[in-house]
Amino acid sequence: MSEAKPATEKVLVVGAGFGGLSFIKATKDPRFEITLVDSHNFHTFLPLLYQVASAGLTAESIAHPARAAIRGRKAKFLLDTVIDFEFDQNRAVLASGERFEYDRLIIAAGSVTADFGVKGVSEFTLGMKSIDEAMIIRSRVMRALEQAARVDLQPVPIVIVGGGPTGVELAGALAELSKVLHKDFPELGPAPLRVTLVEASDVLLSMFPKSLSEIARRDLKRRGVTVLTNAQVAEVTKQDVALKGGRLLDSALTIWTAGVKGNPLSSLITNRMDLPSRRDERVLVDEQLRPAAQKYPNVHVIGDLAAFLDKEGKPLPMVAPVAMQMGRQVARFIVNPKTAGFKYVDKGSMATIGRSDAVVAAKGIKISGFIAWLAWLGLHLAYLLGGRNRLQVVIDWAWNYLTYDRTARQILR
Amino acid sequence: MSEAKPATEKVLVVGAGFGGLSFIKATKDPRFEITLVDSHNFHTFLPLLYQVASAGLTAESIAHPARAAIRGRKAKFLLDTVIDFEFDQNRAVLASGERFEYDRLIIAAGSVTADFGVKGVSEFTLGMKSIDEAMIIRSRVMRALEQAARVDLQPVPIVIVGGGPTGVELAGALAELSKVLHKDFPELGPAPLRVTLVEASDVLLSMFPKSLSEIARRDLKRRGVTVLTNAQVAEVTKQDVALKGGRLLDSALTIWTAGVKGNPLSSLITNRMDLPSRRDERVLVDEQLRPAAQKYPNVHVIGDLAAFLDKEGKPLPMVAPVAMQMGRQVARFIVNPKTAGFKYVDKGSMATIGRSDAVVAAKGIKISGFIAWLAWLGLHLAYLLGGRNRLQVVIDWAWNYLTYDRTARQILR
Repeated sequence: MSEAKPATEKVLVVGAGFGGLSFIKATKDPRFEITLVDSHNFHTFLPLLYQVASAGLTAESIAHPARAAIRGRKAKFLLDTVIDFEFDQNRAVLASGERFEYDRLIIAAGSVTADFGVKGVSEFTLGMKSIDEAMIIRSRVMRALEQAARVDLQPVPIVIVGGGPTGVELAGALAELSKVLHKDFPELGPAPLRVTLVEASDVLLSMFPKSLSEIARRDLKRRGVTVLTNAQVAEVTKQDVALKGGRLLDSALTIWTAGVKGNPLSSLITNRMDLPSRRDERVLVDEQLRPAAQKYPNVHVIGDLAAFLDKEGKPLPMVAPVAMQMGRQVARFIVNPKTAGFKYVDKGSMATIGRSDAVVAAKGIKISGFIAWLAWLGLHLAYLLGGRNRLQVVIDWAWNYLTYDRTARQILR
Repeated sequence: MSEAKPATEKVLVVGAGFGGLSFIKATKDPRFEITLVDSHNFHTFLPLLYQVASAGLTAESIAHPARAAIRGRKAKFLLDTVIDFEFDQNRAVLASGERFEYDRLIIAAGSVTADFGVKGVSEFTLGMKSIDEAMIIRSRVMRALEQAARVDLQPVPIVIVGGGPTGVELAGALAELSKVLHKDFPELGPAPLRVTLVEASDVLLSMFPKSLSEIARRDLKRRGVTVLTNAQVAEVTKQDVALKGGRLLDSALTIWTAGVKGNPLSSLITNRMDLPSRRDERVLVDEQLRPAAQKYPNVHVIGDLAAFLDKEGKPLPMVAPVAMQMGRQVARFIVNPKTAGFKYVDKGSMATIGRSDAVVAAKGIKISGFIAWLAWLGLHLAYLLGGRNRLQVVIDWAWNYLTYDRTARQILR
């Protein structure tokens, strides 16, 4: 109830992902003048990206306009890319040439695909970290089918590398797309796509309890996916994937979901702050999510880009709930610098395998099948941004479910 | 009831537009083995393209997969582009290198933008003849707004050249988008887009009765569009449109809808058949829609690419109803070569100006306003291909109408 009006503070938020937006949503005090910068004019709902890649949803359904997302907050939006930092001058350098001066900086720039140095990954595989990449996958799948219907007259082999949630969900969705496409490509047999999922470790969905991982594997197989575990990729070429040990998988299209690492901004941050770099290219942060609290107390790094170590010294996973909780932590901190340090509350994991089928592990509860799938649907709808997008996704899901059709088979790239 | 089984006939249809698809739909006899070739794997519903350009609809809503469109017919689809004809050998040369042998050829390759030799049109204007171009317009509009909000702090000037239905409908739609975007770009005033429509003749919508043209002009003005008639473009540059007489219109984005001409295949056809070429780059056809009935009785040209002269010696307009009626004419002709010659039945014209407002002229009836708009909605829904797309467009229209929102503001190009 103090009469003194606190000074305004210019806050720059880098990245319109889950971390950046949850910070903005949690910051209601108008004394914080927020500027959000992103190279896209929309937030991408990454958990449903695989459905864009597999022709189930249009790109717009999972892309919420950034200006709509921050409406109602004292926040501006800049369509631009941060290319450097001048931390000593409290400035971010933008691709447009502008030097943006901030009082506080929140870097939530996300992650990119990591190829772990495997030969051929960057030339011959597609990643799945952006709408652009998902649209390219969809177009490449459809083009490969057109080609096969004309020349090979046999199913199109697709190899997905990485048995985490992204790989599992994409494999399941492509296997279902395959059945749907039978009526368009009868000359390619009952399943025009031949999907193989390759995982280096001995188990899919390693963050899940073993029993659920086994269910996921069984259900993918039932849907026609060939699942290879303990299968390490030695090299990818234009037409095949070579596994260590010599096995060759032919592949018209190889999708790499086997690894992620911090956005390239991480090396700028560690260089400019004179901090050691990490192999995962994430930036080590303290309990207030700062990489260098002593020297740069006004700089926070959150989300996938931040390596916050748990009790066992392992960084938290690169998932949306971590980013969102981190965003809210910084929102609390800037109002009250004495706020308690960050603690991640793990609410569990879920992954969908296909029609009426998902696995959910939360607080000791393990469910799979239809009920898990309903839980998955509900949670994803709840977290999707924008009433229009929510309505759209419900309609598309209902249509796809009822008609065994897929909305978005057009080659647009 | 003859017992003799007629020989099969290989029919090649070039182009999945209104002409090609209406031919295929009308051809039910399985003795015709149809192959449809198009460089896209979808049919584009061009009458609603302006709504994709103005962020009201997603691209997928007006793009119906070609394989779905021909399902149920004895027809195959080839994703390929015709690059030449060898009429004497009954072959079409495809970009893939294949030479496709046909018994009958139906060329329905459509039209492209014509710049009439005006300087700067090809470098500095965007056409609106494909989904790709519409997506680029949408992205350029949104980018220009982002730039204006940052630098100029005044509305973005957009010039549309051409007062035909495409220009009028796009102008109206952008004027409405402008109002919707006010809440995203308050710094640019109540109408962040400043739309000018430029027409060389003295009237908009020249194919309509004068009274409806005047209503269209009045209603566009009421929506904030500046309408300039008797305004001929002398030159287009990066930042302005110079009119003959010296007036300069500044323009962040110039969209050229002032002219169309036949697809470049027309010159191949006239060269290879040794026919005179036409200034409008269309191919003159006889009453069975053949350019050279004597020498090549098995080659038809239909749709925008065909110049079929009416009683006054004027070619029919390049519109969907002409193409569809031509497709059905050829379908009748191949079953019965004695079928009566082509006669175009003009069912009227309609154009929408914006929310609750259209003009319709049909068989002496002239209507405008809400009733005309309902007629416009109904007819466009009826002709749109695919139940999914119809449902989608109804939902988008209802959403846009009720919420004054626009679905597709994301910059995806």
